[in-house]
Amino acid sequence: MFFNTQSLNELEQRYRAHLINSLSGFKSANLLGTVDKHGQENLSIVSSVFHLGANPALFGMIIRPHSVPRHSFENLLETGFYTLNHVNEDIVTQAHQTSARYEKEQSEFTETGLTAEYLNDFKAPFVKESEIKMGLKLVSEQVIEVNQTHLVIGELIALHCPDSVIQPDGFIDIEAANTVAITGLDSYHTTCKINRLSYAKPDSKPKPLVTL
Amino acid sequence: MFFNTQSLNELEQRYRAHLINSLSGFKSANLLGTVDKHGQENLSIVSSVFHLGANPALFGMIIRPHSVPRHSFENLLETGFYTLNHVNEDIVTQAHQTSARYEKEQSEFTETGLTAEYLNDFKAPFVKESEIKMGLKLVSEQVIEVNQTHLVIGELIALHCPDSVIQPDGFIDIEAANTVAITGLDSYHTTCKINRLSYAKPDSKPKPLVTL
Repeated sequence: MFFNTQSLNELEQRYRAHLINSLSGFKSANLLGTVDKHGQENLSIVSSVFHLGANPALFGMIIRPHSVPRHSFENLLETGFYTLNHVNEDIVTQAHQTSARYEKEQSEFTETGLTAEYLNDFKAPFVKESEIKMGLKLVSEQVIEVNQTHLVIGELIALHCPDSVIQPDGFIDIEAANTVAITGLDSYHTTCKINRLSYAKPDSKPKPLVTL
Repeated sequence: MFFNTQSLNELEQRYRAHLINSLSGFKSANLLGTVDKHGQENLSIVSSVFHLGANPALFGMIIRPHSVPRHSFENLLETGFYTLNHVNEDIVTQAHQTSARYEKEQSEFTETGLTAEYLNDFKAPFVKESEIKMGLKLVSEQVIEVNQTHLVIGELIALHCPDSVIQPDGFIDIEAANTVAITGLDSYHTTCKINRLSYAKPDSKPKPLVTL
């Protein structure tokens, strides 16, 4: 099948949303946890979190202001803190359900049965059922001019994960933590490791890494 | 295991890179194809492509100016066009090898054995071995102030994919196209579908979607 600008433009809106959302490749599955100044908690699945840098440890996230995560977005702007919690296989249905358009006074924790957990003195709620939990401080928020989406950037300031999934070189085996991947708007996937490959050099071929 | 800002800062640089790069979740695996004005082709694996919007169809990508994709970055700025080609299971090793620091006058197509393919009148090379191939026009490029990375945004203007992987509602089954996912800096994964889930509504529970 071939699509050009014209045939893409002519697609029915929902068809187009499914098609285009499938194209970037596999996406991360995170639950965005926030709380407002009055203690009202919010939880929202996001598939747009991406790595921005390791030093400092920065993550980007794209939010549409009129999308379901808008309450979470308002909360993180208000408090300056949020959590990102990996979605694992056991909580896929509950995580997906957080994308329903609940009212702001409804907590998706309560509505979906996921458990808010406050760890150390971090100001936003983590998801107890998640194995890999990140606490972030808001660093910047900017509008992407071309389509008026918002780019939220946060710095990792707290990380909780099981000892067993950290390999000797620092690599975290998120597959071993049952983290899932997303495609399109609604498809969830477990994974199966092919290999870690050695650092690529021009004069040799990559070899499978043995890290045990 | 718990890390706070101080213990994250104290990590050895390479360990830290592996750790932090593992945390965003599963990442997309794309080959970025470009050519400069003199016909010199370049190909580079990127794990930072993300969905930005469906209408218009926009994709973002993070590039470090001193990273391996720098030649590709220079080319796409020069010509205004680039391709993104899904990495599938059959070409994982070759795709990974494009991350070696070849000289600018070396083509990663030649060096890795992947095949440059020009389709219709699109100005940048696609990867013949890839099942899902996107041609993009550069829309904007901006520096992310907090760590001086570059955010490249492109609009999809050409899409090639097998008829068989497009479902009736527009969803593209990239798993059926053998597209792989990446974690960390060097780990490649195939996937296994759990389910597509129905559109979430506050008063009902998500159900598996049947799309056949």
